[in-house]
Amino acid sequence: MSTAARLQGIFSPVLTPFNADYTPDPVRFQRHCRWLLDQDVGLAIFGTNSEANSLGLAEKRRLLDSLLEAGLPAARMMPGTGCCALPETIELTKRAVQAGCGGVLMLPPFYYKGVSDEGLYRSFASVIDAVADERLRIYLYHIPPVSQVPITRGLIERLLKKYPGIVAGMKDSSGDWENTKAMLEEFQPQGFDVFAGSENFLLRNLRGGGAGCITATGNVNPGAIVQLFKTWKNQDADQQQANLDAVRAVFAKFPMIPAMKAAIAWKSGRGEWATVRPPLVELNGEQQQALRAALDQVGFVMPKADQLA
Amino acid sequence: MSTAARLQGIFSPVLTPFNADYTPDPVRFQRHCRWLLDQDVGLAIFGTNSEANSLGLAEKRRLLDSLLEAGLPAARMMPGTGCCALPETIELTKRAVQAGCGGVLMLPPFYYKGVSDEGLYRSFASVIDAVADERLRIYLYHIPPVSQVPITRGLIERLLKKYPGIVAGMKDSSGDWENTKAMLEEFQPQGFDVFAGSENFLLRNLRGGGAGCITATGNVNPGAIVQLFKTWKNQDADQQQANLDAVRAVFAKFPMIPAMKAAIAWKSGRGEWATVRPPLVELNGEQQQALRAALDQVGFVMPKADQLA
Repeated sequence: MSTAARLQGIFSPVLTPFNADYTPDPVRFQRHCRWLLDQDVGLAIFGTNSEANSLGLAEKRRLLDSLLEAGLPAARMMPGTGCCALPETIELTKRAVQAGCGGVLMLPPFYYKGVSDEGLYRSFASVIDAVADERLRIYLYHIPPVSQVPITRGLIERLLKKYPGIVAGMKDSSGDWENTKAMLEEFQPQGFDVFAGSENFLLRNLRGGGAGCITATGNVNPGAIVQLFKTWKNQDADQQQANLDAVRAVFAKFPMIPAMKAAIAWKSGRGEWATVRPPLVELNGEQQQALRAALDQVGFVMPKADQLA
Repeated sequence: MSTAARLQGIFSPVLTPFNADYTPDPVRFQRHCRWLLDQDVGLAIFGTNSEANSLGLAEKRRLLDSLLEAGLPAARMMPGTGCCALPETIELTKRAVQAGCGGVLMLPPFYYKGVSDEGLYRSFASVIDAVADERLRIYLYHIPPVSQVPITRGLIERLLKKYPGIVAGMKDSSGDWENTKAMLEEFQPQGFDVFAGSENFLLRNLRGGGAGCITATGNVNPGAIVQLFKTWKNQDADQQQANLDAVRAVFAKFPMIPAMKAAIAWKSGRGEWATVRPPLVELNGEQQQALRAALDQVGFVMPKADQLA
């Protein structure tokens, strides 16, 4: 096992900027990544909120390469590499490890439903065996509301036993605190780092010994989320959490990805940021007005325009 | 609009043979395709039961090319080309059209859930516009139990209006006859060919004016299914349907893909046919025995070994 530092803190599934023709814009992508890093937010590129599953394998490879070529630190990256097809997951994971990425966030294969833990075990094991690199750090991505394929406790137990260290942790996007709590109690003491799937559970996760959170709204509200991570033992932690929850609740009232992109488009003055790839659809005018009003109501101030990509 | 013959009859999502190391075996794949064609079963390669979503884009391209190079008739192929990512769907669809495939079976992008009809419309429209070939024939693939992303009547209506002829029909794998019936009544008269998603609805679909069925069990029971398609106006049609249902029910009691592969492995004497790619798992010994016993009980005789790949 490597002695590289374990990943912790706040990560964000980095929004992927598209041009009007739906091609990704690597330059805006780099800028947005730098802006996140400047605020101590790590780069969980190719997450659900990155529209990563609307990107082809070749596009993901090119975007990752563009960040590396631009000199962004691989150690602060946790790319999503879990695809439906084993060879694609292996290829992307290999590339990430060879580039020195701090970890990878891995969805289970998500087309076939009702698959067994044995089948999922074989999936992850096949990737680990094929990548065959001790530097690999896998964070299992549990997001049943979207993937419809859960990562069960039995599966984690079996993977941890066979691949300790390599199976490094998880992102729990179940939205179910009881599940996160169970993971913290059972697996965190074994060095399996539990990241909450949003900042809603950040304080509870840290109090339970967890590693931080990987959260979509890190794209728009990074400062305050990082602040709670850095000061969670302070007296005002519960108040900070309540403030984070209020902002999150606004974005969560809308289709989240288009809402965050709309907010970045306003504040950056770059209208192209609003573009999402089908099957997603950008906010309409009425939704945009409602979003603005709701953000005003909770006193949310977006980071300054000149700081945004 | 082209005047090429419209696809009809029985198609099968062709099982994809794997080697022990999970790589696809193009030679067994060709042989199995030929065997299906010899029995008048068309080739819906890369369907759900082909484990197509466990294949990478490059693998699908190579397998399609291998069939074409082997001289199999593209006009009898309806490859599944719908991926999560637009550029991959476009690439595979383009290749299929340029090769002269009779049609393509297109899943909607299936990672993001709860997406709008507007978003799905844009997905399909983007593919059609990018492929930009009048020979394109799209069969919409409605399989909500697996994809979790339905193809609604409103979506079909809109696509048909904009792209008549190119939007050529659908496979209805909802498992809900009422849905198939509604599609037959509303869209079949407009030249939109409705294929039932299994032979369970074959007779009803034909009586309702439908085009046939696209069915997994075409891989193991092709003769009898094709027989009903050819003689559905005969007096014994209901009895034929009942016989088909009895065989289908046996395979459906087990994980269907491993069960069909196990049956082919026994009858062909090629044990490697039993291999499935993770996240699927082959039948265990007990399941295999139960499958054999249940098939015996309904008097199912698999096609002769020497006819199988």
